[in-house]
Amino acid sequence: MPDEQVRLTAPEITEFLNEVFPGAMDRFVIEDVRPMGARVRMKFNESQLRPGGTVSGPSLMTLADTGLWVALLAMIGREPLSVTSHLDIDFLRKPAPTDVVAETTLHKIGKRLAVGDVIMYSAGETVPCARASVTYAIPSNRMDPP
Amino acid sequence: MPDEQVRLTAPEITEFLNEVFPGAMDRFVIEDVRPMGARVRMKFNESQLRPGGTVSGPSLMTLADTGLWVALLAMIGREPLSVTSHLDIDFLRKPAPTDVVAETTLHKIGKRLAVGDVIMYSAGETVPCARASVTYAIPSNRMDPP
Amino acid sequence: MPDEQVRLTAPEITEFLNEVFPGAMDRFVIEDVRPMGARVRMKFNESQLRPGGTVSGPSLMTLADTGLWVALLAMIGREPLSVTSHLDIDFLRKPAPTDVVAETTLHKIGKRLAVGDVIMYSAGETVPCARASVTYAIPSNRMDPP
Amino acid sequence: MPDEQVRLTAPEITEFLNEVFPGAMDRFVIEDVRPMGARVRMKFNESQLRPGGTVSGPSLMTLADTGLWVALLAMIGREPLSVTSHLDIDFLRKPAPTDVVAETTLHKIGKRLAVGDVIMYSAGETVPCARASVTYAIPSNRMDPP
Repeated sequence: MPDEQVRLTAPEITEFLNEVFPGAMDRFVIEDVRPMGARVRMKFNESQLRPGGTVSGPSLMTLADTGLWVALLAMIGREPLSVTSHLDIDFLRKPAPTDVVAETTLHKIGKRLAVGDVIMYSAGETVPCARASVTYAIPSNRMDPP
Repeated sequence: MPDEQVRLTAPEITEFLNEVFPGAMDRFVIEDVRPMGARVRMKFNESQLRPGGTVSGPSLMTLADTGLWVALLAMIGREPLSVTSHLDIDFLRKPAPTDVVAETTLHKIGKRLAVGDVIMYSAGETVPCARASVTYAIPSNRMDPP
Repeated sequence: MPDEQVRLTAPEITEFLNEVFPGAMDRFVIEDVRPMGARVRMKFNESQLRPGGTVSGPSLMTLADTGLWVALLAMIGREPLSVTSHLDIDFLRKPAPTDVVAETTLHKIGKRLAVGDVIMYSAGETVPCARASVTYAIPSNRMDPP
Repeated sequence: MPDEQVRLTAPEITEFLNEVFPGAMDRFVIEDVRPMGARVRMKFNESQLRPGGTVSGPSLMTLADTGLWVALLAMIGREPLSVTSHLDIDFLRKPAPTDVVAETTLHKIGKRLAVGDVIMYSAGETVPCARASVTYAIPSNRMDPP
């Protein structure tokens, strides 16, 4: 699987996500897409702030979910039907009030499930503020399996 | 622990949460508080909708986190410093475009960690749309441990 | 789903598991089977002991997995092919050197996945020593879907 | 933290673990220890086999737990008191009947909790058979915090 090529470029994925979930990418920038992985940046926004000046937990969960979904779309192509079936997240350090960058790695794209890991960093930091893993259920009627 | 009494009533918890996180309870109604558990309703709001007419994943994660935090506050009292350290969630069924009710159960309030489970139902349903478990780190300088 | 009846009794499940996984039930006793749930006891055995006189973590994970699988088999019948795809466990309290009882609840048996929760108690205790959730991948070629 | 040096070498960790948990390392070989990470091999043993010729789930969970504990001990030194508080694992592919190698990465060693990720490969494979994350509770009376 890591030898496969990506089917969609970063701009193609952004365009597709904005088509199927209007507004979904307003806060996200796809910085890199590679076979079985992606780097996605969540732009800082005052509305995410929690008291104490930190990025909220739900924002980090959304970043994890979106970041790994980008990696999945890059591999399987224009396929809006995959749905998140499981997400777990560990909050490691209070994120600074700035952008957060998610490095995502897919470990498996199976017939029914895709599974991957996400490590999140406040922009410019080398130690992560959160880690997550996410599972997606892939629709069985997909036309063009990888 | 289940024999202990709650220290705060539902209105006291709502008031306290609105003090420390202004707006936090705008979407939530505490329906019941009991020793080591609570029932919390998330009011339906068009802004949570995902394409397809379902409540979004991040909304359900926020409900799980808030619902169990309510149960924790009821037991430990006015203590804003506990922070979520881990959350995992399984999305079981597509939630209907309506309120979602979380039944939360605390299994442990230790010196450092509190852990509990959450089962979520679309209003009026008997089968859950999601399950979650959440861990909170409890500050070590707490004055009045349970 | 909770209205459905179980397809297999406790003795039938024990017999079936011993057929497909010889020895699998040597340490386990099915105490109760009901629609979408089961209670399974893990018999204490010196070999599970960790230094300090506690039941080992891997033993509790095996109990969670087996206990929920019993509940699944009761619903779907003689079906050896379901495999565990995800397990998460929180260790809450040091278990005493005695039997451990798992109360298991299935939340969903879907076409592809089954998901449930497990609460584990040292025999005679009312506060749990561990909680777990488990997901099973159900083979798509199953003859007789529930 | 990644800049710190390890306090114990692989042979020192093996010796220490065999002291505090006699027999614990019979099945494990520490292949590499580095700041905030380790590679640990689980030797294949017929007794781990499941019907179908695969390494059992509980064996993989034990490998994840042991592998990350090795990385933690390398950083904090001879400290037997850390206990696993949470483990989650995704089973990705049926492992071959051979050794399994765990690549472990610590993301945080805090005052109370340490958290890390584990990717497991059947010996010689480039795609993982399982991923896990593990949290350890660190005793508060530790003499020499990192």
